[in-house]
Amino acid sequence: MTGERPPPGEAAANAIERMVAMLARLPGLGPRSARRAALHLLENRANLLEPLVGALGEAAQCVRRCDGCGNYTTERLCNICTDSSRNPEAICVVENVADLWAMERSEAFRGRYHVLGGTLSAVGGVRPEDLGIPKLAARVGGEVKEVVLALNGTFDGETTAHYIAERLAGSGARITRIGCGVPVGGELDYLDGDTIAAAFRSRLET
Amino acid sequence: MTGERPPPGEAAANAIERMVAMLARLPGLGPRSARRAALHLLENRANLLEPLVGALGEAAQCVRRCDGCGNYTTERLCNICTDSSRNPEAICVVENVADLWAMERSEAFRGRYHVLGGTLSAVGGVRPEDLGIPKLAARVGGEVKEVVLALNGTFDGETTAHYIAERLAGSGARITRIGCGVPVGGELDYLDGDTIAAAFRSRLET
Repeated sequence: MTGERPPPGEAAANAIERMVAMLARLPGLGPRSARRAALHLLENRANLLEPLVGALGEAAQCVRRCDGCGNYTTERLCNICTDSSRNPEAICVVENVADLWAMERSEAFRGRYHVLGGTLSAVGGVRPEDLGIPKLAARVGGEVKEVVLALNGTFDGETTAHYIAERLAGSGARITRIGCGVPVGGELDYLDGDTIAAAFRSRLET
Repeated sequence: MTGERPPPGEAAANAIERMVAMLARLPGLGPRSARRAALHLLENRANLLEPLVGALGEAAQCVRRCDGCGNYTTERLCNICTDSSRNPEAICVVENVADLWAMERSEAFRGRYHVLGGTLSAVGGVRPEDLGIPKLAARVGGEVKEVVLALNGTFDGETTAHYIAERLAGSGARITRIGCGVPVGGELDYLDGDTIAAAFRSRLET
């Protein structure tokens, strides 16, 4: 296969090659789809390439972390932290902004967030301070009545949830974890044994 | 499913929403992968987002059509048209730049190109002038000894190839078409009847 090579060279093609190479670094785009995307952009310069440059440039300049929770925002505090209709007594702890967005899409939670920005990792040298856990502990000291740990069901997610639960144990707030088990619409026959075992342990009275 | 909604709003999220919306318009990225790409870019601002803005901005400013063949270039003529090691006596006619790149990757052809920019279409109102066919005819008047029609095997591709072959019939140049048939590694059992019939018609003495 010669499909992975850049478009035919020349000093001239360099601008195109750089464009293709950068697009190929986006998650979800390989070398072939990056070439397709580059051609599509060049063919739709005014209504696609130029607005995309504008939107990405604006994001690069304006988007920052919320001082309150770590969400992305263009202000000091994000719209969730400043939304007075949301419950200030509940904090949902998530690993990253993608998980915050996923939680928001579910419409299951109407409190505030704490974005860790990762998980604890002895190997990777990620310490509680790196995840803002002391700051979370300070937030929980106040009016917060519940901390919902919505970490991923991975080994590092579990470890981090366990650490936070221990750390906040004396805070007076209720520490909960989101449920583990069969996805809605999921079939047992297609699930791994660990998930089924977790679902069994999480069983509730009907 | 609520997976198609933009990330949680606020004036602040607008920069992010615009970024996600523009990324979602790239071929190969849907709303979900556009969100993932946006977060990935924001998390890698210095080594991904900013260079991407630079590369796309440069392409938007510098890339133009080659005056000779219609390929993308940053100069008046592309690297293929100016490459004196290439055979000036052969012109390969392709529908678009993606097909030119595909032909170059095959390393099968070492002449020059003519990029039509589409196919003739009565419905779409695409006329020979819109595809630079008069200009192609003028190029063929000179030293050109062969015109290879490398159009797609679609109805419009066939129609356009037929039109160009007729138009150039009296030019003195040999007009050929790339072969039609079984892809290398292809199995008859998986091919449609039209392709097998075309392969049968294209049979050669061994």
